[in-house]
Amino acid sequence: MDEEGCFVVGKLITFEGPDGAGKTSALMAVVPLLESKCNQDIIVTREPGGNPIAEKIRNVILDVENTAMDDRTEALLYAAARRQHIVEKIEPALADNKIVICDRFVDSSIAYQGAGRGIGEEAVAQMNLFATNGLAPDLTLYLDVPSEVGLQRIKQNRQDQYDRLDQEKLAFHQKVRQSYLQLAQDNPERIQTIDATADLDTVVAKCLQVIEQRYPDLFTA
Amino acid sequence: MDEEGCFVVGKLITFEGPDGAGKTSALMAVVPLLESKCNQDIIVTREPGGNPIAEKIRNVILDVENTAMDDRTEALLYAAARRQHIVEKIEPALADNKIVICDRFVDSSIAYQGAGRGIGEEAVAQMNLFATNGLAPDLTLYLDVPSEVGLQRIKQNRQDQYDRLDQEKLAFHQKVRQSYLQLAQDNPERIQTIDATADLDTVVAKCLQVIEQRYPDLFTA
Repeated sequence: MDEEGCFVVGKLITFEGPDGAGKTSALMAVVPLLESKCNQDIIVTREPGGNPIAEKIRNVILDVENTAMDDRTEALLYAAARRQHIVEKIEPALADNKIVICDRFVDSSIAYQGAGRGIGEEAVAQMNLFATNGLAPDLTLYLDVPSEVGLQRIKQNRQDQYDRLDQEKLAFHQKVRQSYLQLAQDNPERIQTIDATADLDTVVAKCLQVIEQRYPDLFTA
Repeated sequence: MDEEGCFVVGKLITFEGPDGAGKTSALMAVVPLLESKCNQDIIVTREPGGNPIAEKIRNVILDVENTAMDDRTEALLYAAARRQHIVEKIEPALADNKIVICDRFVDSSIAYQGAGRGIGEEAVAQMNLFATNGLAPDLTLYLDVPSEVGLQRIKQNRQDQYDRLDQEKLAFHQKVRQSYLQLAQDNPERIQTIDATADLDTVVAKCLQVIEQRYPDLFTA
């Protein structure tokens, strides 16, 4: 039961991790394997989730003219897009008994905006409670890499874009990772930490194993 | 001192009230009288306050295609525009020792979105604390009218627009007013209630009197 008294029958599974953890690659590899084994429908989504209102909000955030946007303004806009994504896509799918797999959710805001940008993790978490109205993931797979490894991977993947990698980027990445690790420590039931320094196949197998162990009923024939 | 340690030297005075209270008319009449008597610079503002980011956010809210916008999404967008207005206009003016007179502020969100729309006053107040980062008005003039009077005034002023005035509008207006009255009761130091059933001249004189009594130093030659 969520806070408005609706009986939510699906499951919300989120993938989280700092840049360079290989989160999206792992997610995209996990989903077809899950689909082939799972007896419940699966949808994959990420914010802004394709709805026109959230897309318009995202455009305001990404508008290159908006150079003077305050960090809190940006956090509120991300939360507004999240709210609309929840209402239009996630909640209907959960009500329809689907497994919703979401690439990043509130934990990303806490880690990146709360810790990385320095707004404060508790403030960002509280404000996002307004956006989610209490909807929380049933299970979160946190793909963890040391910051040096994550940044090195980004550098290899997009060499020209991250050429000027510097201490500032490392410090930011470390703040984000520390915040994720703290979240995992504070929410041991919800958040499962996966060592993402391993190769992709190993990470994918571990993700599948965690989901199957948590929800064995989904995988009975 | 605000929460970020800046020494705020100006004063933030807000005008609040339900529709039909004559709030904006009173404000526009009070300001030139204040300017003629007060020894401190005054600026008058209202959200979105003319800054491009807040204007773009407002456009998303007002976009007629956005018919399916969730109430919480809208509240977050208003809060985002408020944040940017605070950072770009209100805080710099306060730091510059100005009197900032603002037509509506957080109380409007609490009354209209929290109570009127039914999101919940405490939830809207908490979320707006993220947007204001603790900045609160020094003084709020709440112009109070019974809902029947307020709605009758609106009907007279904009006849075609409010033709289909109905019980639903009255119930909404009453919720908004009750919320304002509760805020005034809970914040007796900050919020001064002014009887706005009187004629405009009387209301304006009362507003001036309240400001002069609160800040006698502003009016010494």
